[in-house]
Amino acid sequence: MIDDDVQATIARVREDVARLHGELVRYGLVVWTGGNVSGRVPGTDLFVIKPSGVSYDDLDAANMILCDLDGNVVPGTPGSERAPSSDTAAHAYVYRHMPEVGGVVHTHSTYAVAWAARGEEIPCVITAMADEFGGPIPVGPFAIIGDDSIGRGIVQTLQGHRSRAVLMQNHGPFTIGRDAKDAVKAAVMLEDVARTVHLSREGGLLRPIPQQAVDSLYDRYQNVYGQAADTRRDA
Amino acid sequence: MIDDDVQATIARVREDVARLHGELVRYGLVVWTGGNVSGRVPGTDLFVIKPSGVSYDDLDAANMILCDLDGNVVPGTPGSERAPSSDTAAHAYVYRHMPEVGGVVHTHSTYAVAWAARGEEIPCVITAMADEFGGPIPVGPFAIIGDDSIGRGIVQTLQGHRSRAVLMQNHGPFTIGRDAKDAVKAAVMLEDVARTVHLSREGGLLRPIPQQAVDSLYDRYQNVYGQAADTRRDA
Amino acid sequence: MIDDDVQATIARVREDVARLHGELVRYGLVVWTGGNVSGRVPGTDLFVIKPSGVSYDDLDAANMILCDLDGNVVPGTPGSERAPSSDTAAHAYVYRHMPEVGGVVHTHSTYAVAWAARGEEIPCVITAMADEFGGPIPVGPFAIIGDDSIGRGIVQTLQGHRSRAVLMQNHGPFTIGRDAKDAVKAAVMLEDVARTVHLSREGGLLRPIPQQAVDSLYDRYQNVYGQAADTRRDA
Amino acid sequence: MIDDDVQATIARVREDVARLHGELVRYGLVVWTGGNVSGRVPGTDLFVIKPSGVSYDDLDAANMILCDLDGNVVPGTPGSERAPSSDTAAHAYVYRHMPEVGGVVHTHSTYAVAWAARGEEIPCVITAMADEFGGPIPVGPFAIIGDDSIGRGIVQTLQGHRSRAVLMQNHGPFTIGRDAKDAVKAAVMLEDVARTVHLSREGGLLRPIPQQAVDSLYDRYQNVYGQAADTRRDA
Repeated sequence: MIDDDVQATIARVREDVARLHGELVRYGLVVWTGGNVSGRVPGTDLFVIKPSGVSYDDLDAANMILCDLDGNVVPGTPGSERAPSSDTAAHAYVYRHMPEVGGVVHTHSTYAVAWAARGEEIPCVITAMADEFGGPIPVGPFAIIGDDSIGRGIVQTLQGHRSRAVLMQNHGPFTIGRDAKDAVKAAVMLEDVARTVHLSREGGLLRPIPQQAVDSLYDRYQNVYGQAADTRRDA
Repeated sequence: MIDDDVQATIARVREDVARLHGELVRYGLVVWTGGNVSGRVPGTDLFVIKPSGVSYDDLDAANMILCDLDGNVVPGTPGSERAPSSDTAAHAYVYRHMPEVGGVVHTHSTYAVAWAARGEEIPCVITAMADEFGGPIPVGPFAIIGDDSIGRGIVQTLQGHRSRAVLMQNHGPFTIGRDAKDAVKAAVMLEDVARTVHLSREGGLLRPIPQQAVDSLYDRYQNVYGQAADTRRDA
Repeated sequence: MIDDDVQATIARVREDVARLHGELVRYGLVVWTGGNVSGRVPGTDLFVIKPSGVSYDDLDAANMILCDLDGNVVPGTPGSERAPSSDTAAHAYVYRHMPEVGGVVHTHSTYAVAWAARGEEIPCVITAMADEFGGPIPVGPFAIIGDDSIGRGIVQTLQGHRSRAVLMQNHGPFTIGRDAKDAVKAAVMLEDVARTVHLSREGGLLRPIPQQAVDSLYDRYQNVYGQAADTRRDA
Repeated sequence: MIDDDVQATIARVREDVARLHGELVRYGLVVWTGGNVSGRVPGTDLFVIKPSGVSYDDLDAANMILCDLDGNVVPGTPGSERAPSSDTAAHAYVYRHMPEVGGVVHTHSTYAVAWAARGEEIPCVITAMADEFGGPIPVGPFAIIGDDSIGRGIVQTLQGHRSRAVLMQNHGPFTIGRDAKDAVKAAVMLEDVARTVHLSREGGLLRPIPQQAVDSLYDRYQNVYGQAADTRRDA
C-alpha cells in the first residue's frame, strides 16, 4: 500500500510530466506522437512516463503511466490500461543506474538528430552552451530498441560527463536532469545549440572558446548563480 | 440508394478527412489552398476528398466531396456543386489499383519537394525512418497533370515497396495509408525525415544504418508493437 | 463628390486590404511593420494601401489609406491623417502603367530577399511554380527609394512576363495580381518556391523541367481549370 | 523620496518593458528564460529590467526590477525580492556610458549567434539593412560574464557607429535604441538580416550595395521620413 504523502507526490509528478510535454510542442521538438518525458517520484522506486501513441492534445495527469524502475507498469493505477512509451526501458535503465537523475527526455528534434545521423559531437563555440553543458555534446553508440543497449549507451556516455545531453547515433537525443523540468530545459537548450552551431559552421570557420573560459563559465553557471530552488543560472 | 450504415460511414469519413486537413496546416506542410487529403469509404467504391480552391479555414465535413473510384463526383451529395481537388484523378487511380489503401495525401511540403526537384531518393540514416518507412523514400517518374500518368507513377513506385511515401519528380510527395489518418501521419513523418536528412548531409558524411538493423527496426515497428487499432508503434 | 456605389466599393477594398495583411503575418512574410498590400478600387483612379509604421495588430479598414494614382492621399477620407506606406509611389506607378493590375504586394520575405541579394533569378524546377508563375522568377534592377525608379523597374520587368513576381535586386519582392488577394497569393507562393528551390539546390544538381512541360502546365493552370471567379486553379 | 511624476514614469516603463518581452517570443528570438529587455526611466538614473529565471508566460509590470545605473536593485520596490537578469551589469554599463541610449536588448537569437560564433560581421547587402543599420553589423570582443568586460565591449563597438546592434563574439547580440521599443525593433530586424544574409550567401556570391547608396538610404531613413514620435521610417 502506498501512503498519502507518496500519493500526493505521485499526483504532483503526474501533473508536472503531463504539462511538460507541452513544452516539447511549444519549442517544436516533436511531431505527431513522438518524444517522451518522464519524472522520478522522489523518495520511491517509481517514475511517471507518457503513454504510447496518444496525441499531445490529449495528454493529462490521468493518462500518464506509473512504472517501477524495471519499467513495469504499476497495475491498478490510472493510465495502467495503456502501454507506456516504447522508450520506457531506456528511461528505467537511466533511473536504475543514475540515482541523481530525476527526469529523462527523449525527442527526435531536427538539428540534434542531424548531428546524430553523422555520429558527430557538437563543438562548444557558444558561451550559453558552456554555461549549460560545460563543453561539447557527446555522441552515444548505435543501439536499437529491444534490450538494454539504449539505456546502457546513455548511462555510459553521460556518467561523469558535464553534459546532460547525449546524441544516440542515428537515433536522437536523450537528456537528463535533476527533475523532469530540468531535463526538458536541457532538451530545449540542446536543440537550440544544435541548430545554431550547425548554421554557424555552414557559413565558415568556427572560433573555439578557450578551455579555461569554458570551465569558468560552467563553474559560475552551476555554482555562483545557484539559488535555493534553481541550481542553474537563468538569464 | 445508399443504406443507413453506409450513410453513417460516409459521414464519419467526411468528418475525419475534413479534420485531418488541419494537421497539414499544424505541421506546416501546406500553404494557401495547396495540398489535399482523401479517405476511402470502407465497404464501398467511394472516397471523400477536399474541394478545390477552398481556404483551409473554411473546410468542414459538409464541403468535402464524395467521388467514385473513377474520380467522378457523386451527384446530389453535399459539396457536389464544387469541383473536387485537381489531384482527384491521381487519388482515384491509387484507390482503384491498391485495394489495401484507405487514405491518400498530397502536399508540396518544403523539404520533400526539395529532394523531388533533384529526383533524389532520401537515404535511410535515422532509426525513426527505418521504423516508419523501412528504408529509403523512393522517387517516382516525372509526370504532369491531365491523364493517369501521376496515379500510375505512384502505384508503380509504391506497389510492393515498404515505403508509404513517394517523391514524384519535380512535383512533390504522395503518401498512402490504411486510412486517411495513417496517410497524414506518413506525410508528417516524411517531411520530418526529409528535413532532418537534408540538414544532416549539409554538415558532412552521413552514417548509414546496416541493412539488418533497418530490417529489424521495420519488422518490430510493424509487428511486435502492433495493437488492435494501431498496427504501428507510436513513441 | 463620390457616389454611393463607389463608396461601397471603397469600403469593400478597405476591408479586403486590411484583412489580407493578416495573411502576410500568417505566412511569416513580414516582421515588425514591414511589408504592404494595396488594392485598386475598381472603376476608379484610386487605390487603398497600408499606413506607414502601424503594427499589424492594429490594422483595420478604418486606418487603411485611400490614394490617387499619383500616390497622393485623398484628403478628408478615413486614415488620411497618417502617412501612407513609404512604398506608395512604387504601387502608384504600377497602377498607372499596368491597368490590368488590381493588387500589389511588397515584402522582405526571407528566401525571396536571399535570391534578390545575389541578383539571381529563381529557376523553374517545380511543377507548382510552372503552374503559378509559368517559368523563372525574374530579377529587377537595383533602384533606391525616392523617385520612380522602383516602380519603373517593376513595370519594365513584369510587363509581358508570365511571372506575377519580381525580385528587385538587393531589395526584395513585389508581386502583382488581378486584385489584392491574387497579389497576396503570389507573394505567398513566391516565398514558398524561393525557399524550396534554395534548399533543393543546396543538396545538389536541380533537374530542369522541359520547356514544353512548363508551357503545358502554365496553360492548363491559367485556362482549363479556370472558373467564374477564380481564373487560376487551386489544389 | 521619489515624487509622483517619477512614479508614473517608472510605472509606464515597467509596463513597456514587460510587454516588449512578448515581442522576443513572438519573433522567436528567445527560448526558455533566455534573453532580456531593459528600459531607462527618463529623467532619472534608473532603469527597469527583467528578473532572472522567470518564464516568459509569467512576466508582468509588477515583477520587472528597478535598478540604479550601477546595476543595484532599488530596495523596497516591486520585484526587488528577486535577482535581476544575470546580464544586468552589461545593461547598466551601457546606460552609464551612452546617455543617449534609452533601451537595451540581449538575446541568443539563432542566426545572429551563428555569425557571432565565427566572429564575423554581417555585410550590408540588403536595402532594409542600409535603412536600419546604415552598414554592416559589427562584432564585439570575446568577453565573459563577471566584470565590466561585456558592457565595455558593447560600448566600445557601438559608440560612434551607425549600427544599433553588436554581435559579441561567441556570445550573441546586444542592441540599443532611444527607448526599449526601439532596441527591441533593432533585435528583431537584426535577426531578420542575419538570417537573410546567411541564406543568401549559402547560395552564391552576394552583390554589394555601393557605399553611396548605403549612405543615401540611411540618411533618408533617419531623417526624411522622420516624424514627431518615430524618428525612423516604417514601411
